[in-house]
Amino acid sequence: MKHFLVKSVVARALIAGGGRNFNRQLLTAATTSPELKLRHVGAIHNSGYWPRMSTLAPSSGEKDQKEENGNAVVSSYWGITRQKIKREDGTEWPWNCFMPWETYRADVSIDVTKHHVPKSFSDKAAFKLVKFLRALSDLYFKERYGCHAMMLETIAAVPGMVGGMLLHLKSLRKFQHSGGWIKALLEEAENERMHLMTMVELVNPKWHERLLVITAQGVFFNAFFVFYLISPKMAHRFVGYLEEEAVISYTQHLEAIESGKVENVPAPAIAIDYWRLPKDATLKDVITVIRADEAHHRDVNHFASVSDIQHQGKELREAPAPVGYH
Amino acid sequence: MKHFLVKSVVARALIAGGGRNFNRQLLTAATTSPELKLRHVGAIHNSGYWPRMSTLAPSSGEKDQKEENGNAVVSSYWGITRQKIKREDGTEWPWNCFMPWETYRADVSIDVTKHHVPKSFSDKAAFKLVKFLRALSDLYFKERYGCHAMMLETIAAVPGMVGGMLLHLKSLRKFQHSGGWIKALLEEAENERMHLMTMVELVNPKWHERLLVITAQGVFFNAFFVFYLISPKMAHRFVGYLEEEAVISYTQHLEAIESGKVENVPAPAIAIDYWRLPKDATLKDVITVIRADEAHHRDVNHFASVSDIQHQGKELREAPAPVGYH
Repeated sequence: MKHFLVKSVVARALIAGGGRNFNRQLLTAATTSPELKLRHVGAIHNSGYWPRMSTLAPSSGEKDQKEENGNAVVSSYWGITRQKIKREDGTEWPWNCFMPWETYRADVSIDVTKHHVPKSFSDKAAFKLVKFLRALSDLYFKERYGCHAMMLETIAAVPGMVGGMLLHLKSLRKFQHSGGWIKALLEEAENERMHLMTMVELVNPKWHERLLVITAQGVFFNAFFVFYLISPKMAHRFVGYLEEEAVISYTQHLEAIESGKVENVPAPAIAIDYWRLPKDATLKDVITVIRADEAHHRDVNHFASVSDIQHQGKELREAPAPVGYH
Repeated sequence: MKHFLVKSVVARALIAGGGRNFNRQLLTAATTSPELKLRHVGAIHNSGYWPRMSTLAPSSGEKDQKEENGNAVVSSYWGITRQKIKREDGTEWPWNCFMPWETYRADVSIDVTKHHVPKSFSDKAAFKLVKFLRALSDLYFKERYGCHAMMLETIAAVPGMVGGMLLHLKSLRKFQHSGGWIKALLEEAENERMHLMTMVELVNPKWHERLLVITAQGVFFNAFFVFYLISPKMAHRFVGYLEEEAVISYTQHLEAIESGKVENVPAPAIAIDYWRLPKDATLKDVITVIRADEAHHRDVNHFASVSDIQHQGKELREAPAPVGYH
């Protein structure tokens, strides 16, 4: 893992810094010295990079130079190109939505039965609300596990984004640091979105399900936005309980796979890359790592809820965020 | 730089995967085998880690074990602790809002005069709007460069967050990949926020400026939200022009420093760490790297505007995002 990460991060260094130089200097090279270009392409090549063929046609009124370079073409539009990234085995990295250094091995040593016993009124209200929503979704989906999971993820990816955004705006308004919580919550949202990107490879949503998602998002996004404005503490508790239910759902999903009710199909390619699963991984492996992610989000949100206001009148930013914990 | 990144990413690997195991196993260790604990602390120690003292007091009703371990205490609340990260020189990493592997050397080889000549009606409208806002802010700030820059950043950090969030929601609604644009835009927002976190070390906002920021954000966030919903293409063009103005402002700021109108004070510690500046860096160095960031945001947004709808009827997600380009 270390070796993999080390490699990928040298690559990342190129994107973060050298990547830009590479684009710019390669472009200069196109008009000036070929040595410079070759030296650069070499450097890029050694670290598993190729300049990527730009998807942009020359835009009228924009100066645009192109330079044939083996199988690659570099467009100079505003000096931006996206590097082509290769795996260690030399095959091309197929994803734009996540990079090799964002992949991870899920820690599946989780306590699936963990539950925060509601004490305060707001805890109880949050818990009852989640149980009510749970009953509704069970009514609608019954035992269509795949579909249920997919719809769950379209909702589960919203709170992290809303929370992260509102903390970002608060940090700007108040000239305050975030304690890493903006990042932690946005990471949660992105992780949930990756669950969805995995699910859609397994389940093909019908038109009425797409319609339901659009409606549900419209309602839930706005409701949670206001909810978080009023009480971040209660909002995080609500998400904590939502994730507790997600863990239960995925446990049932796993039981259905074990009992043969649900076919244990091969894992989609995107899941194998994102969670670094073995090539022969199956749906069971995918659901297991997704459940682990949900359990970690459960922990983070219950943690956030407590450290938010309740504890010594502290604010979230004063309790360092568990960045990278998902 | 590579060496630095390699080190920091092994550390990151610990946070992403091992970090969790570390917490959990260290906790198990507290109740079971001391060897396990010692082995783990050793592993963590070697890679520059220490378990961090939790800021959480035992919360009523939550089981909470604590384990004295040299100068470190681990709280098991939901199994989450934030690792203490050390620099290569052994000093503690002081920031929660960004980690060593998120720091970078800005590419200052930028074209400060670059300008997208408005052609379409929407381009012209976006340009005129920006010029109008520019005139307003010049009226208000005149030659108070530091203050102007600070206020600019409270606004500049909004569009990336709004755009990233709306693309995130769109990706969920439509079961579509993002092409990395969610990440690219959120990175832009975070980078602008770091500019602000730097500025507040240099300028102390007065009450009426704080009031102005709150008002401006309230108006601008909602306006840009609707703006982006109606026309992402025009919204990105608008931001491109906004960033062109930012580059101009920071160029004037630099001239004022060179002419001695503004004192070239030492760079704040946060800036030295974030942009990997030399220890004796000054305000001039800070403004130079910030201007480079703004120039990159300018490029990304003009790029996004063109690749958005105009180009071959493509959507943003179909043109790979320049992730890490800031």
